Amino acid sequence: MAEDQSKPRVAFVGLGQMGRAMAQRLGEAGLPLRVWNRTRARAEGLPEAAVCASAREAAAGADLVVSSLADDGAVRDVVLGADGVLAGLPRGGVHVGTSTISLRLAGELVDAHAAAGSAFVASPVLGRPDAASRGELWLLTGGDAAAVERASPVLAHLGQGRIDLGTPRQAVLAKLLANFMIAGTIELLAEATTLGEKGGIAPPALVDLLTRTLFGSPIVKGYGGRIAGGQFKPAGFAVPLGLKDVELALQAAHDLQAPLPVASVARDHLIAALARGRADWDWGALATAVREAANLPVRQD
Amino acid sequence: MAEDQSKPRVAFVGLGQMGRAMAQRLGEAGLPLRVWNRTRARAEGLPEAAVCASAREAAAGADLVVSSLADDGAVRDVVLGADGVLAGLPRGGVHVGTSTISLRLAGELVDAHAAAGSAFVASPVLGRPDAASRGELWLLTGGDAAAVERASPVLAHLGQGRIDLGTPRQAVLAKLLANFMIAGTIELLAEATTLGEKGGIAPPALVDLLTRTLFGSPIVKGYGGRIAGGQFKPAGFAVPLGLKDVELALQAAHDLQAPLPVASVARDHLIAALARGRADWDWGALATAVREAANLPVRQD
Amino acid sequence: MAEDQSKPRVAFVGLGQMGRAMAQRLGEAGLPLRVWNRTRARAEGLPEAAVCASAREAAAGADLVVSSLADDGAVRDVVLGADGVLAGLPRGGVHVGTSTISLRLAGELVDAHAAAGSAFVASPVLGRPDAASRGELWLLTGGDAAAVERASPVLAHLGQGRIDLGTPRQAVLAKLLANFMIAGTIELLAEATTLGEKGGIAPPALVDLLTRTLFGSPIVKGYGGRIAGGQFKPAGFAVPLGLKDVELALQAAHDLQAPLPVASVARDHLIAALARGRADWDWGALATAVREAANLPVRQD
Amino acid sequence: MAEDQSKPRVAFVGLGQMGRAMAQRLGEAGLPLRVWNRTRARAEGLPEAAVCASAREAAAGADLVVSSLADDGAVRDVVLGADGVLAGLPRGGVHVGTSTISLRLAGELVDAHAAAGSAFVASPVLGRPDAASRGELWLLTGGDAAAVERASPVLAHLGQGRIDLGTPRQAVLAKLLANFMIAGTIELLAEATTLGEKGGIAPPALVDLLTRTLFGSPIVKGYGGRIAGGQFKPAGFAVPLGLKDVELALQAAHDLQAPLPVASVARDHLIAALARGRADWDWGALATAVREAANLPVRQD
Repeated sequence: MAEDQSKPRVAFVGLGQMGRAMAQRLGEAGLPLRVWNRTRARAEGLPEAAVCASAREAAAGADLVVSSLADDGAVRDVVLGADGVLAGLPRGGVHVGTSTISLRLAGELVDAHAAAGSAFVASPVLGRPDAASRGELWLLTGGDAAAVERASPVLAHLGQGRIDLGTPRQAVLAKLLANFMIAGTIELLAEATTLGEKGGIAPPALVDLLTRTLFGSPIVKGYGGRIAGGQFKPAGFAVPLGLKDVELALQAAHDLQAPLPVASVARDHLIAALARGRADWDWGALATAVREAANLPVRQD
Repeated sequence: MAEDQSKPRVAFVGLGQMGRAMAQRLGEAGLPLRVWNRTRARAEGLPEAAVCASAREAAAGADLVVSSLADDGAVRDVVLGADGVLAGLPRGGVHVGTSTISLRLAGELVDAHAAAGSAFVASPVLGRPDAASRGELWLLTGGDAAAVERASPVLAHLGQGRIDLGTPRQAVLAKLLANFMIAGTIELLAEATTLGEKGGIAPPALVDLLTRTLFGSPIVKGYGGRIAGGQFKPAGFAVPLGLKDVELALQAAHDLQAPLPVASVARDHLIAALARGRADWDWGALATAVREAANLPVRQD
Repeated sequence: MAEDQSKPRVAFVGLGQMGRAMAQRLGEAGLPLRVWNRTRARAEGLPEAAVCASAREAAAGADLVVSSLADDGAVRDVVLGADGVLAGLPRGGVHVGTSTISLRLAGELVDAHAAAGSAFVASPVLGRPDAASRGELWLLTGGDAAAVERASPVLAHLGQGRIDLGTPRQAVLAKLLANFMIAGTIELLAEATTLGEKGGIAPPALVDLLTRTLFGSPIVKGYGGRIAGGQFKPAGFAVPLGLKDVELALQAAHDLQAPLPVASVARDHLIAALARGRADWDWGALATAVREAANLPVRQD
Repeated sequence: MAEDQSKPRVAFVGLGQMGRAMAQRLGEAGLPLRVWNRTRARAEGLPEAAVCASAREAAAGADLVVSSLADDGAVRDVVLGADGVLAGLPRGGVHVGTSTISLRLAGELVDAHAAAGSAFVASPVLGRPDAASRGELWLLTGGDAAAVERASPVLAHLGQGRIDLGTPRQAVLAKLLANFMIAGTIELLAEATTLGEKGGIAPPALVDLLTRTLFGSPIVKGYGGRIAGGQFKPAGFAVPLGLKDVELALQAAHDLQAPLPVASVARDHLIAALARGRADWDWGALATAVREAANLPVRQD
C-alpha cells in the first residue's frame, strides 16, 4: 500500500470549535488522524479519526502533530506536560501549533522541540470556525524551512492560502498584529458610529458609507454590521478572548519595546464591557463601552 | 438659445488644487463658469470660465455657487465677508460648499443663507485632487431636498457617487468621521508595522499580509504602502491639514458629547511629527512619531 | 491730598464670583474703584466703587485696569471691542488681565496694547473665589517689568504671593499647566479610587492613605475628598469650565508642539460627564465617568 | 532568660538593597535574626544575624519570617519552592511579605499558608532604601487580625507608620495604587514641564511654582526635581521596576474590571525609554520619552 505509506501520519490535539473544524477538513481529505481532546466527548465522531487517551499517545504514532489550544496555559500543559505532545512525538517529528500564543512561549516551544530532536512550526490562522470548515482560513506560518515543507501538504487542506513569515515567533507576532488591527478597527468603528449617532447619522448609514467608499474590507463590513445592528450574540469571538489577544499584543509591545497606544484604548473598552457582565458577547461589544461613555443606550438584539 | 437657458449659471470660488480640478471637470462638461480665487493667477486658463474680481461678483451672476476653501477662516471670509458669496448670491440661489469645516460653522452657514433667502448645501468630498480630475470623488451631501435636487446635475459631474446624509451639519460630520477613520487607520498601520519591524517582520511584508487577507481597502493599501516605503513626500495631504481635520473631529466630539480617544492618539503623533519639522510631509508621517518612540530610524525616500 | 494722588486710579471690569471677590479686596484696602460688569446689578454695592456704563468708561479714568472675564470670547468683547478697555485706557496705562485665556489671545493682547501705547500684564490666579476673598490667591504674572512694577501694589492686595513668569504668554501658559496638573491629578485619583473600590478598598481610606504618606498636597486632599465623598455639588469649578481649560492646554500643546496625552484622557472623561447631563457638577465629577466605565454606581450627595 | 523567650524568633529572607536596610533595622533593635539571601555574600555582616543555607532553614527556626523579594517569580521560588519559606515555617508561624506582587499571587499565598497552618500577612512598603534605613517607610498591611497583631512589634521597627488595609490582596492593591499614583504624577510632571519648556518656562521654575502653590507633596518635589534637573542616574527605582509595577496595576485593572488609562500612557513612555536603552535610569526617565516626542533634547547630568 504505497499510497498509505506516502501519507503522513497526523495527530490532532485540541478539538474546540476551531480545532474540530480543522480536523474535520483533514479527515475529509482522507488523512487518517489520531485525535485527542481534554473533554473526550468532543473528540468522537470525526471521520478517519482514532481517539487517543492522551496528547502524548496521539503524538507517539504520528509524523506530524497539529494542535489547536486556547491559550498559553493550555499549550504549556498539552504540549510541554508529562503526558504532552513533546513527550510522545518521535524524533524528527513536526509539531504545527495553530494557537495564538505569546512571543515568549513561542520561543520556549522552539527551544523545547529542538532539544527533543523535533521541530516546532507556528501557524496561527486568520478566520473563524465557519471559515475553517470551508477551508478559507489564512495560515500565518513560521518555522524551519524543511519542517514547513513537510507540513505543507497538511496545511494546504486547512486554508485558502499560506503566508510565510520566517520564524515561529514572527508567525505568532504577525497573528497578534492582525488581531490588533482588528481590535483597532472595531475601536474606530465604535467611536465613529457613536459620534455619528449623536449627530443624527444612523450607524447603518455610516457603515454603509464607509464600506462603499474607502473602507471596503471584510473587517469593516463584518464588525461594522455587528456594531450598527447591535448584534453581539452569539459571539464569533468573545470579549475575554479578544482581551487576551490584545494583552498578548501589549506584552509583545513591552518585549520588543514599541508602544502600542491604541491597543490600550481597546483594552480599556473591553475591560469596561466585562465590567458590565458581557463576557459572552462578541468582542465587537467593546463598542458598547464607547456608546455608554457617550450616554447612548446599549441594546442587544 | 434654449440650451443656454436650460444650463444653470454656475460660479466656482476657491481654486486650490482640489477646487481647480473640480472646476476643470465642470468646464469640460460644457458648463460656463464664473470663477474667483484669492490669487488671481490660479483662476486663469480654465475652459469656459470668466474670471471675476470678487466672490461676490462671481456669485451675483449665478444660480449655483460651488466653493472649495481651505478652512473655517477662509470660508468665513469668502462666504460671509462683505465681498463674499452670500453678499452676491441672488435670492433663491444655491451654494454648495465642498470644504471640510466645523459643525459649528456648518450651522452658521445654514442660518446665514436662510436669512438671505438662499440655500446652503454641504457636499464635502472623499478623494484627492487626482481623483477629482478623474471625476472619482465621493460626495457626502446634505441640505434641503429641493436645493440638493437643483444642485444635482452639477454634482453629478464632480464625483462617481453621491451619498445623501440629511442636513449640511450631518454631511460635514460624515466627512469628519471618514477622515477620522483614515487617521485612525494610519495610526493602526503605524503601530503595527513598527512593532512588527521590531520583531523582524519587514513593514512591506506585513502590509502585504494585511491587504491580502482581511484588510483589503484602498486606505490600508495606500497608507500602508506609504508607511512601508517611508514615502511621505510629496504630501497628498500634509500633516497640518490632517491635524486640522482630526481637531475638527475632536471639536465635534465635544459639541456632540461623545469621546473619541483614538483621535487624541493620532493628534499627539501628528503634533510630534510637526515638532520634528515635518509640516510638508504627508499625514501618513504620523507613523514617523510612532517609529521614533520605538527608537526605529525614520527615513524619507 | 498727597495721599490720594499717590494712589493709583484703578478700574475693575468683570465682576463674576472671582472678580467680585478680588474687587472687594481692593475696595477694602481703600482703593477707590471704577467698576463695570455686563450685568449691572452685580456691580452694585462694592465699597469705594463707582459703577460705570461701559468698560471703556471705566478704563478712561484709570491708570490701571484689572479684568476678570470668563473666556476668550468675553475678553475679546470687553477688552478689544468698540466700548472696551483698550478704547478707554489712557496712553501709558496698564491692563492686568486675570482671566485664563488662550496663548493666541495673550499674544494678540500684548500687540494690541503696545499699538495703543499701553501695556498688558497677564496675571491669572490659582485659587477659588473663597481664597480670593481671603487674599490667598497665587498670582502668576507676566509682562513688561516696568508695567508689572506699577501694578505691583495693587496685585499685592489680591494674593498671598506673586510668581513672575516673564511674558504674558508665559504667565498664561503657567496657569494652563497648573490647571492641567489639577485635571491630571483628579484623573489619577478617579482611576485609583475606582480600581481600589473594585478591590474592596473604600475610597476615603485610599485618599487618607495617599494624603498621609506621599501625596499630602491641597489638590489631592481637596479633590480626593470630593471624589471619595461623591460631593460634586455645588461646583467649585464646573465641568464645562474645566473642559474649557483642558482644551486651552491642548491648544497650547498644538501651538507649541508638545503632546499632552493625559489632558486628552481627562478631556474624554469630562465630555462623558457632560454626556450624562452633569454640566453643573464640579469638574471633580470626571471621576463619575471613570466609575461608570468600571460599572460602579454614581451618587451625588 | 525570660527576655529572650519573649522576643520573637525572626527570619529575614531577601537581602537586596531594601531587604538589607530593613534587616539592619531589626538587628539594631536587638532582634536576633536568621537570614538568607540567594547571593550569600549579601547576607554577611548584619548585626545579630545567623546566615542560613536556605529560606526553608531560615524559616524553620522562626516564629515570624519577613521577606523582601524582587517580583512574582522570586516570591514563587523563595516562598513556595521546595526549599522555600513555606516548607520550613512551623505551624502557627507568620510570614510577612513586603514585596510588591500581583493580586493573583497574593491570593495564592494566602491559600498556601492557610493550607500549611501558617498565616500570610502582606505588608508592602512605601519608600526607598534610604528611607528604610531611617525607619521612615510606610507599611501598607493586610492580613488576619491576630497574625498582624503578632507581627506588630516587628513591623514597628520597620516604618514610621502602619496603615491597615484588610486582606493581603487589599494591602497589595493599595501598594499598586500608590505606585500608580507616583507613575501618573511623573507623567503629569513630564508633560507639563515639556510643554512649559517649549513655551519658554524653564522646568525648574515650573516645578518651583507647582510645589510652592498647590502641589507641595514629596512626590512632586522629588520627581519634579529629577525631571527639571535631568537627573536620572543613579536610579532610585529603575525603569524596568517601574514598568513592572505599572503592569501589575494594569493586570489588577483587568482582574477587577476597572480601566486605568493613565497607567497605559505611563507604560508607553516607560517602554519608549527602554527602547532608547535607558534600563538603568530612574523611572522618572519616562519624562525623556515625553521630551523626545516634543523634539526637546534629553540630557543626563
